[in-house]
Amino acid sequence: MTVTEPIGFRAAGVAAGIKSAGGLDLALIAAERPVTAAGVFTKSVTAAAPVALSRRRLSEGRGMAVILNSGCANAGTGAEGEVAVELTTERLASELGCDSQVVLAASTGPIGKKLDVELFTAAIPQLVGSLDETVEAGLLAASAIMTTDSRPKQSLVKVGDATLGGIAKGAGMIRPDMATMLAVLTTDLIVDSDDFRVALGKATDVTFNCLNVDGCQSTNDSVIALASGESGVRVDPQTLEEAIESLCRDLVRQMAEDAEGATKVVKLLVTGTAGDDEARRLGMTVADSALVRASFFGADPNWGRVLGALGVAGVRFDPSALEIAYDGETVCSRGVGVDVDEDGLAVRLKGDFTVAIKVGDGPGSAEVTTTDLTPDYVRFNGDRS
Amino acid sequence: MTVTEPIGFRAAGVAAGIKSAGGLDLALIAAERPVTAAGVFTKSVTAAAPVALSRRRLSEGRGMAVILNSGCANAGTGAEGEVAVELTTERLASELGCDSQVVLAASTGPIGKKLDVELFTAAIPQLVGSLDETVEAGLLAASAIMTTDSRPKQSLVKVGDATLGGIAKGAGMIRPDMATMLAVLTTDLIVDSDDFRVALGKATDVTFNCLNVDGCQSTNDSVIALASGESGVRVDPQTLEEAIESLCRDLVRQMAEDAEGATKVVKLLVTGTAGDDEARRLGMTVADSALVRASFFGADPNWGRVLGALGVAGVRFDPSALEIAYDGETVCSRGVGVDVDEDGLAVRLKGDFTVAIKVGDGPGSAEVTTTDLTPDYVRFNGDRS
Repeated sequence: MTVTEPIGFRAAGVAAGIKSAGGLDLALIAAERPVTAAGVFTKSVTAAAPVALSRRRLSEGRGMAVILNSGCANAGTGAEGEVAVELTTERLASELGCDSQVVLAASTGPIGKKLDVELFTAAIPQLVGSLDETVEAGLLAASAIMTTDSRPKQSLVKVGDATLGGIAKGAGMIRPDMATMLAVLTTDLIVDSDDFRVALGKATDVTFNCLNVDGCQSTNDSVIALASGESGVRVDPQTLEEAIESLCRDLVRQMAEDAEGATKVVKLLVTGTAGDDEARRLGMTVADSALVRASFFGADPNWGRVLGALGVAGVRFDPSALEIAYDGETVCSRGVGVDVDEDGLAVRLKGDFTVAIKVGDGPGSAEVTTTDLTPDYVRFNGDRS
Repeated sequence: MTVTEPIGFRAAGVAAGIKSAGGLDLALIAAERPVTAAGVFTKSVTAAAPVALSRRRLSEGRGMAVILNSGCANAGTGAEGEVAVELTTERLASELGCDSQVVLAASTGPIGKKLDVELFTAAIPQLVGSLDETVEAGLLAASAIMTTDSRPKQSLVKVGDATLGGIAKGAGMIRPDMATMLAVLTTDLIVDSDDFRVALGKATDVTFNCLNVDGCQSTNDSVIALASGESGVRVDPQTLEEAIESLCRDLVRQMAEDAEGATKVVKLLVTGTAGDDEARRLGMTVADSALVRASFFGADPNWGRVLGALGVAGVRFDPSALEIAYDGETVCSRGVGVDVDEDGLAVRLKGDFTVAIKVGDGPGSAEVTTTDLTPDYVRFNGDRS
């Protein structure tokens, strides 16, 4: 169920003292040698220092190790932050005996806090020394990247004799423009560098980015993938993409279930647009609406709020063709309300449910995952500690 | 302090039974004859039936009466909703003895609920019969358009011997993409139709739209203005625009102070962009962030969250030039944190405050008004009643 299961990968997680509350806060996932690698990163103008470094180093499509810390985003830290990530990755490269160009980095935690390079580098020998290929080691790594997550997130997908593994930390909130999501994927498939990059991008688009708004990401969002080729198995690009997508979708589900303060996961299934992009934009705009998400909290099939949000997504559609169903029950047909047993339906909306939104007859569709907005979310994020 | 103070206008507010909870729910503002008129409306694809009607009728720049109801948005009501607003405005025109083409309409309330034409038209004789030019009549009209507002919103501006008056209902929430805002402005200035339209558009851009996101509005947002010319005073377009802006700004302040569940009003003053549009986009993106607004609730000068939001606004800027000050105290300079007495500052953030954000040396600026996001907001909007 984790990143160490594909052949050729080891992991570790230690407590370096970066998190002010203590606990595991430094993770390492490493191949035995430089391997094929790809990454997808936040497009934020104020991207964190490790994002710029990893993006640059991945331009050659090679990587050997990913070091991740929680407790400090290393964003809003200026030139000092850039130096910090250079120094720490160089220190790791020397400990691993590799070129620093194949060492990648990711950070998560408070923005604006300076990364403590001394604490960080002091922990590197122990981190490298505890690298192991066991599932326990993978779990330690998954635990060390947690911030407001209540549990580690790990996943595994089999493709014949080959394996893909992944760990992630959730968007604390469901929208990563507000909190960082990090994921590291490993596989022992033999992959072509370009195919890998394209497959990771496409899979990210329909999974992590459907918890996300294009161009609306945090300072630190990073998905980094390494492929060792050790299984000796090679698959076609389509199969590769499906496998990565399946892995990412499972991680997304875990992130949604663990979203801060959320009591339920709501899937928005949008269909009938010209293309998938329009469907995704409609779904994301509905998921952006605090008013809609507050009604999910209240188990209220308030389709009028959904209609209101759809109208401002910047996507043209014919309102008189609109169909909306909560948990399979149509509440709006041809753009107007349908009489339903609201009290009976409300009982079913107390748990997870799906809202199906059909805006026309086009072939486009998207599945957007969101949660309810709860008083606990606000209390949690209003806390100055 | 209201729409009846400019010469040539009367108002009324009655209880028609449209609001399920009872109370005043039907308002009328009327000139004595067709006068110069202008309007600004939501760009929503799912705009309500009265929006389409008023926009069409205002294409000639003439209007005589505006009828507004609360308790039903008449949105998500299809062709039946269009017929309803045609019928009710025709009934009003016949009661006023005017052409229906100069009768404008606006609605607010739950989306998807059908407008009860019988209740509506049955109240029209009483509504017209109680038209009066007193301030009390203006207050009745301002009260009849309230939904979740806790108090009516009225304002007055003098320009020499001429007067501008206004009433508004707030965005329940601070972002009108989530709840409708309606405003009716009256003036006894002599205005040119084109000047009036342009001035209203410009004033709306820097006031109501700075509580708003371009293209991200509700199904019903409407600002309708009538000019009787009865003062005999004519001013230059610039003075006209400033007067309308001043009136709108005061209404916006009242809307923010009365936002659902909010405990404080926060002004975001963005400067240093190339143009005002970029500054507004940055400010609106910060105001969009639930994470930032939750930190406002917590009196937390968490500039890292502001930096994170700025990064995803789709506006290029140099993060190393960023300056952020809370209540006049610089917390981020040249893109990195500055040591401040956070506890002392937090005390000052318990009330209303300003966050000044400077992203460069450009001449662009914008003032965006927002509030804190509170647990009460979520509780209120999660309530199915």
